[in-house]
Amino acid sequence: MHAITIPEPGGPDALVWAEVPDPTPGPGEVLVEVVASAVNRADLLQRQGFYDPPPGASPYPGLECSGRVAALGPGVSGWSVGDEVCALLAGGGYAEKVVVPVGQLLPVPEGVELVTAAALPEVVCTVWSNCFMVAHLRPGETLLVHGGASGIGTMAIQLAKAIGARVAVTAGAPWKLERCRELGADILIDYREQDFVEELRKATDGAGADVILDIVGAKYLERNVTALAVNGRLAVIGLQGGVKGELNLGALLAKRGAVTATSLRGRPLGEKATIVAAVREHVWPLIEAGRVRPIVDRTVPMREAARAHRVLEAGEQVGKVLLTV
Amino acid sequence: MHAITIPEPGGPDALVWAEVPDPTPGPGEVLVEVVASAVNRADLLQRQGFYDPPPGASPYPGLECSGRVAALGPGVSGWSVGDEVCALLAGGGYAEKVVVPVGQLLPVPEGVELVTAAALPEVVCTVWSNCFMVAHLRPGETLLVHGGASGIGTMAIQLAKAIGARVAVTAGAPWKLERCRELGADILIDYREQDFVEELRKATDGAGADVILDIVGAKYLERNVTALAVNGRLAVIGLQGGVKGELNLGALLAKRGAVTATSLRGRPLGEKATIVAAVREHVWPLIEAGRVRPIVDRTVPMREAARAHRVLEAGEQVGKVLLTV
Repeated sequence: MHAITIPEPGGPDALVWAEVPDPTPGPGEVLVEVVASAVNRADLLQRQGFYDPPPGASPYPGLECSGRVAALGPGVSGWSVGDEVCALLAGGGYAEKVVVPVGQLLPVPEGVELVTAAALPEVVCTVWSNCFMVAHLRPGETLLVHGGASGIGTMAIQLAKAIGARVAVTAGAPWKLERCRELGADILIDYREQDFVEELRKATDGAGADVILDIVGAKYLERNVTALAVNGRLAVIGLQGGVKGELNLGALLAKRGAVTATSLRGRPLGEKATIVAAVREHVWPLIEAGRVRPIVDRTVPMREAARAHRVLEAGEQVGKVLLTV
Repeated sequence: MHAITIPEPGGPDALVWAEVPDPTPGPGEVLVEVVASAVNRADLLQRQGFYDPPPGASPYPGLECSGRVAALGPGVSGWSVGDEVCALLAGGGYAEKVVVPVGQLLPVPEGVELVTAAALPEVVCTVWSNCFMVAHLRPGETLLVHGGASGIGTMAIQLAKAIGARVAVTAGAPWKLERCRELGADILIDYREQDFVEELRKATDGAGADVILDIVGAKYLERNVTALAVNGRLAVIGLQGGVKGELNLGALLAKRGAVTATSLRGRPLGEKATIVAAVREHVWPLIEAGRVRPIVDRTVPMREAARAHRVLEAGEQVGKVLLTV
């Protein structure tokens, strides 16, 4: 088969479409013939050599895919060759074939194109696990999403609105905020022009955010804690603004707040399967009812993955950039 | 009635036993004739002028008491004049009488002396709410308790052992660690002589602590994060070592960890009542079965509260210092 390989870490051109050996499904695994994958920020880090795949994972980038089941490993039941699926991956989505632990497989939701389904697994699992399973966002609460126009952001807005929460977003341009508004965001903050702590305070009568979904990390840590409501929960899922920041424990204690930091990729199979099962139970019906939809910015042929990476690096996209085989 | 007043914040002698007006129970409140109170570290801060009572609370120190119901406010049912009780307070325990919201009242557990029951409410509610309701300590997990010989520490050791967790403690002297061992602690760390991160690592085959109950705050923040296990939860309940510390979000993310900071005193009545009800349901049976017991270091007449404060400031005690009327 072919896959995007990284012979030498570096810029987008480090991504090389090359012939590689086919993978073989082991016990509890399924071989998927990939139709599409999608670009995640972690792929950019992996390409640069800053984010090695976890032990046992495919060496190729790609944390999600859609496609068709091509073969079942020993002991797999509940799926058949030819089934249209999408999947959460620890790597290997940028390839013509990929092996998937069966617990990370999802059916393509009714009403969603097979290619488009590649936009779903990573963002849905990330948002659901963080906002709902970790931070327990509840109806009537306020969620602040940093990077509201990102793949994660566009899904977080929709899921939070679907459960009856109020949503504030930050983004770096008015046209991105407009897209967030169309998806349901209630409070729009241009972080280049406005102070998000102050804007959120004004918009919530001083209460702040019950949950913050953050991709920035250290650079926002102090302001995020300031922006938290009493009993607020800050869920850090990315470190684009650095790793080490000052935490004011006094401020956190006065609010009885929580700071969590998670990633999906490194979780053991059992935890991933639990998240995927929860997503199938809670989010798939919302998608099939048309209340939540995958937001695709553009679709690029997989062999031109470098071009797709440049789009993310420039921050030009709203929603997901897909890669098609 | 008499109460310990603080005419001017300062050292232990700032505490003055004086005649003050009797309090009157309002709707949903009960008047308790105090038999005993207990010293908490927050009382020392309040005495120094660093920790004002929350709005509406008694101006006198004292976050817990035991005694007898002396009068019921309007609308109170389920309690009778003369009932022997103990109570979680937002203040006012250092007095002959105190008004208590009915949700913060507990019966004296069978087998516990009325005076001794004053040692229970604050530590049991703090440990239960943090280790179990916030951090969800589970059987088989490892809890690290800083200050294992404190009132909080001696209760945390017993409760964690009672639910089947493994317990590591730090303390500043071998004789204190010996008392922790008698209460069930499995891993004993003398923080004056040993590095708790390293000792915990050795004792857990590198895994670390699933839950850390911390009273130190900033000074331990970095090491506590290092000491956390994968999926570990750091519950900060005190800031004896400072307020602002560096948080390595990368380290936290790699572990999918959580940092929470809480206090009991500032919580609204509903949250306190929820905690008190959970304690009555889950902890009172353990006390009545003799599996968990209040640890009292010594008992001092309330009018000599200054002496009791000096004991805590010197770190001489194991367990609680009680004040009797």
